[in-house]
Amino acid sequence: MDKTYIFGHKSPDTDSITSSLVMCELERKLGNDNVIACKLGNINKETEYILNYLGIDEPELIESVEDESNVILVDHNSPSESIDNLENLNIKKIVDHHKIAIETTYPLFYRAEAVGCTQTILYKLFNENNVEITKEIASLMLSAIISDTLLLKSPTTTDDDVIAVKELAEIADIDYEEYGLEMLKAGTDLSSFSISEILSLDAKQIDFKEVKSIVNQVNTASIPDVMAMKDDLEEGIQEIIEKEDLDLFMLLITDIVNSNSQVIVLGKDAALVEKAYGVKLEDNTALLEGVVSRKKQVVPIMTENA
Amino acid sequence: MDKTYIFGHKSPDTDSITSSLVMCELERKLGNDNVIACKLGNINKETEYILNYLGIDEPELIESVEDESNVILVDHNSPSESIDNLENLNIKKIVDHHKIAIETTYPLFYRAEAVGCTQTILYKLFNENNVEITKEIASLMLSAIISDTLLLKSPTTTDDDVIAVKELAEIADIDYEEYGLEMLKAGTDLSSFSISEILSLDAKQIDFKEVKSIVNQVNTASIPDVMAMKDDLEEGIQEIIEKEDLDLFMLLITDIVNSNSQVIVLGKDAALVEKAYGVKLEDNTALLEGVVSRKKQVVPIMTENA
Repeated sequence: MDKTYIFGHKSPDTDSITSSLVMCELERKLGNDNVIACKLGNINKETEYILNYLGIDEPELIESVEDESNVILVDHNSPSESIDNLENLNIKKIVDHHKIAIETTYPLFYRAEAVGCTQTILYKLFNENNVEITKEIASLMLSAIISDTLLLKSPTTTDDDVIAVKELAEIADIDYEEYGLEMLKAGTDLSSFSISEILSLDAKQIDFKEVKSIVNQVNTASIPDVMAMKDDLEEGIQEIIEKEDLDLFMLLITDIVNSNSQVIVLGKDAALVEKAYGVKLEDNTALLEGVVSRKKQVVPIMTENA
Repeated sequence: MDKTYIFGHKSPDTDSITSSLVMCELERKLGNDNVIACKLGNINKETEYILNYLGIDEPELIESVEDESNVILVDHNSPSESIDNLENLNIKKIVDHHKIAIETTYPLFYRAEAVGCTQTILYKLFNENNVEITKEIASLMLSAIISDTLLLKSPTTTDDDVIAVKELAEIADIDYEEYGLEMLKAGTDLSSFSISEILSLDAKQIDFKEVKSIVNQVNTASIPDVMAMKDDLEEGIQEIIEKEDLDLFMLLITDIVNSNSQVIVLGKDAALVEKAYGVKLEDNTALLEGVVSRKKQVVPIMTENA
C-alpha cells in the first residue's frame, strides 16, 4: 500500500500534533503499516512541554506532498487550514471535531463529533476497534483534551471529554489536574517568541459572512504580562491586515486561570466586536468576560452579528 | 428533548427508507425517545415488497419541518437531495456513504464510510454501542445492503458489506440469496407506474462540472421489456430537460441478473456519454457493459470527461 501522510491543521496546536501521532498508531494497529505522522508547522510551547515530558518525538514537518498521495486529516477538515495541494490528494479518512467545511468528489471515512477534542473521538475509535491504549497513547490523548478544553473548563467540554479524561488519567497514571495546569502554563510562556510568531501561533482565518478575518488566540496566566507588549502587537497586527487584506483581526488573550479573554481588535470592521459582545473598545481593546472558546464563543456570535 | 426527524434522501430507495427506521431504533436504544422516522417521498416497489414481507410500517411522509427543528440525515448529506429548508434546521447527526457535499456552521456527529450501503455503517454503530440487533432490524439492514450492492455484485461492494450481510442473514434467519433475488425482482416491476413516475423513481441531479444533469436508474430483469417503452420515455425525458433546463439526462436501465446497463441519453451534451464510455449512441441509446453503479461507474467517469 502507498504511504499515507497523517496531519492536523496549519499553526498546529497540541490536538493537531498528538492526533497525528495517535491516529498513526491506530492505523498501524489496524494493519496499515505505511503511515507517517506529520505536522504542517512548528509545535508550540505547550506541545513541546508535553512531548519532552513524555519523551516522544515530534511528527515530521512537511510543506507539501506529491499529487495523488494518500492522506488522513485529523483535527481539521477545512482546505484553508490544510496542506496547500489538498484538492489533488486522495483523502482516505478525516477524524475531526469542527464544522464541515470540505466538499469531496468521492466517498471517504469521515468521523466527526461535536466534542471538545479530536482525541476524545480517537479514544472511542481505539475502544470500538479493540485496540489497546498504551500508557504513552493515553498520555498524548489526555494532554490534548486538557489543552482543548482548558482543563475541562471551556464551554466546548462535553460529558464524553470528561469520561475520556478520567479513564485516560488512570491508564496514564497521571494526576491530570496537577499535570494539566503545568502543561497549560508551559503553553503560556511567550518569552522566546517574536511578535510575528505570537501573532501566528494559533491564528485561524475565519470569514464572518463577508467580513474577512483572522482570530488569533494566546493563552496566559497573566493578562497584564501580554498587554505589556500591546504597542508592538498592534503594529504587527496592522502589517498582517495590510498584507492579507483583512477586514478584522482579533487577538484573544485568554486567562486560563480565571477563564476570561482580553481582546485586541484592529481593522475596518472592529466595531463588529463591540456589537457582538456589547462592549466598548478603548484603545482597541476590551475584556470579554467568560469568553475562552473561539469555536463556541466567538465564531457563532461574530457570524450572527456580521 | 425536542423531536428529532430522521430521513433519507428525496426519491427514496430502500437504503433511505430502512436507514431512517433503523437509525430511529438506534436513537431510541441510546436514550433519545423523541424521534420519528420519516421519508421525503413515496417508497418504491422494492421497498414495498420488503416492508410487506417483514410486516413493518412505512416511515411518515413529510415535505417540510419547522425551522430550527432537530434532524438526522441518513443515506445522504447533499442539501440538493434533502428537505427544502435544511439550511434552517439543526442537523444533529449524519450517517451516510456518499461524498461530502454539505457545509455547516457548527460541529456535529458525522459518520461516513466508503462502503456499499448506509446500513453497513449502522450495523457497525449498533455493535459499537452494544445495542442488540433484533431479527426485524437485521432484516431491514440486510435488505438495504442487498439493494444497494445488487446482491453484493456491484463494484461498490466492500468487504465490510459482505461481512455484514453474512452476519445479518444469520440473525434474520433468511436465505439472503434467494430472498435477495425475489426482492430485487419485485423492484423491477414497473407495471403500475406512469412514464413520469418511472423517470423520477431514482433520479439524482448531478452536475458533471458545468454540465447540468439528471441521472435516473431503473433496475430490471429484462432490458427489452423496458426498451419497449422507449418512445414514451424519450418524450418524458425531453419534457424534464426543458422544464429543468438540463444539459443532459441519462436513464440507466440496469439488468440486475447480467450486470449491464442500457442507457438512454438526451440533451445537448449527450455526446459526453459517447466520450466517457467509448460507445456510439444509436437512436439515443447504447449498452454500457458491466456498468451497474451510478456512484462508482457513472459519476467519476462522466465528471472526468466533462
